Amino acid sequence: MATIRDVAQKAGVGVATVSRVLSENGYVKEETKQKVMEAIRELNYTPNEIARNLYYKRTGIVAVIIPQISHPFFAEFVDKLVVELLAHNYKAMICNTWSEESYELQYFDMLKRNMVDGIICATHSVTNEEYFNINRPIVALDHTFGRGIPCVSVDHKEGGRLAAMELIQAGCKNVLQFRGSSNVDSPASLRHDVFEKIIREHGLGYQEIITDMNDLSEATAEKIAYEFFEKYPDVDGIFGTDFTVMSAMKRAHELGIDIPGRLKVVGYDGTKISRLASPGLTTVCQPIDDLAKQSVNIMMDLINGKTIDSSDVHLSVSLHRDQSTAIN
Amino acid sequence: MATIRDVAQKAGVGVATVSRVLSENGYVKEETKQKVMEAIRELNYTPNEIARNLYYKRTGIVAVIIPQISHPFFAEFVDKLVVELLAHNYKAMICNTWSEESYELQYFDMLKRNMVDGIICATHSVTNEEYFNINRPIVALDHTFGRGIPCVSVDHKEGGRLAAMELIQAGCKNVLQFRGSSNVDSPASLRHDVFEKIIREHGLGYQEIITDMNDLSEATAEKIAYEFFEKYPDVDGIFGTDFTVMSAMKRAHELGIDIPGRLKVVGYDGTKISRLASPGLTTVCQPIDDLAKQSVNIMMDLINGKTIDSSDVHLSVSLHRDQSTAIN
Repeated sequence: MATIRDVAQKAGVGVATVSRVLSENGYVKEETKQKVMEAIRELNYTPNEIARNLYYKRTGIVAVIIPQISHPFFAEFVDKLVVELLAHNYKAMICNTWSEESYELQYFDMLKRNMVDGIICATHSVTNEEYFNINRPIVALDHTFGRGIPCVSVDHKEGGRLAAMELIQAGCKNVLQFRGSSNVDSPASLRHDVFEKIIREHGLGYQEIITDMNDLSEATAEKIAYEFFEKYPDVDGIFGTDFTVMSAMKRAHELGIDIPGRLKVVGYDGTKISRLASPGLTTVCQPIDDLAKQSVNIMMDLINGKTIDSSDVHLSVSLHRDQSTAIN
Repeated sequence: MATIRDVAQKAGVGVATVSRVLSENGYVKEETKQKVMEAIRELNYTPNEIARNLYYKRTGIVAVIIPQISHPFFAEFVDKLVVELLAHNYKAMICNTWSEESYELQYFDMLKRNMVDGIICATHSVTNEEYFNINRPIVALDHTFGRGIPCVSVDHKEGGRLAAMELIQAGCKNVLQFRGSSNVDSPASLRHDVFEKIIREHGLGYQEIITDMNDLSEATAEKIAYEFFEKYPDVDGIFGTDFTVMSAMKRAHELGIDIPGRLKVVGYDGTKISRLASPGLTTVCQPIDDLAKQSVNIMMDLINGKTIDSSDVHLSVSLHRDQSTAIN
């Protein structure tokens, strides 16, 4: 493989000149530049990206830390994130923690070693201190770090309100919320508070099942669905993430419980899989593509040393109304 | 931040000695080594990983090229792949092509520039020549490149056989297959041939709808489901990927078509979302975790210069029998 020295020799110039041409940095006569470019073409020379990155003290890589790629919400978020990063000529290194501490520690070890230019974090398990120790730009999804670290999220309060009002309007008397809990401060929790508040204010019965925001396995979702129908036979409306309520819908089908006749259902997230539900699932949709896009935009500003106007971004949610709440 | 020079100065040795200690390469007196290690601890020195990788001519990164992360099969494959790579101290760079040529070209540009130590490829759109031009170890999922590039896949012939026999045993008379087509040679196509052959041999009616293996959007799956029920009202059994047949099941629910009473359904993949289907979906399960594990094992062998015994790996499939075929 041709080296920069071969190019320099062929073009009859010094290595430094070739370097200036490659980096488009510093003055080089047009005639000399043409000679260098011709030598590059003739030798099929490709600059070594590792070496260039070392020189520029950048890696061209952004780490994306998420609990699990195969959860529908994170799958769609990362799908779009990778494409948005590519548009800025950045590549995505995916770090899925599976909520395993040992995995996280390995990633942190890497992050401390200059492997990435920035971190987009969407986990809810690691302590903030671990992140503060990494001297890189950070953008958080649904995670309030404080200390000026920008947090991108939707208006979860409005999400909780939309869900509560939908079940009230559907005529429910006794509703249950699947409430995700986590170790960290997340704006996503606000929807639960608002939902509970509105349901209680309207005089409906209110129950909840606490779920672990970091445990996203389908086995857990099935277990929760079983538990729900055993413990709460009188509930006539439920609210939870698409994945959780779709598990409940499957269980309802097995038990012969009619949806929406006996049980109304409202999901959260608006992932693609929610479109597969039968009957059609009413769900609060997060603009997942926009969340990814905004996260990348802010990351690029941080990497390029721009001042961020506001540290937090709240995007709008919308209600997709379908058969599971039977309102027309 | 402390540099290697600071460490050398504090330990009272040369930079080369510190480098030898760090790389565990070359002789260093035990006493000197202790001094260096103490200086590293005291100064909280972290070697720059980019520089180290340049020195060792490795990046510690494997590129994973897939059509779309948010498709359930690829989501689960990548989820496990990332964890398996981490176990070998490798990180995953995710390249989702969305079947966009411009994205692919950007990735190929990167791959040619020494950014990764190997490539795990699971797309079915790019021409083989592009890959042959990259001088890196390649492991392919469901893609027969030839030229000794290992291909990891399941025994798709057996998958097609299991699906056909299930619909025959369920009493179907007229079945339809959603047949995925692609531009490249893939062992995944074998299931379609075997399925058709067995169905015809048993004297059942056979129809097919051709789908694009690279178009994985839910909108397309919905469109196909609509088309199916309009054009083939007499079909009483269908076979396709989990995602495709679940779209058809949703449409059947809207049309009041009973499953399994009037239509029997067999899926393919055995993804987590198939567990959300109502009624329960009979599906041919690929061992997705094992596919990821084998892909990584072979990649590690290639990176470490080991000889690969057999270039192709075929893992077993299994049938998960559920309500959608009503066989007990």
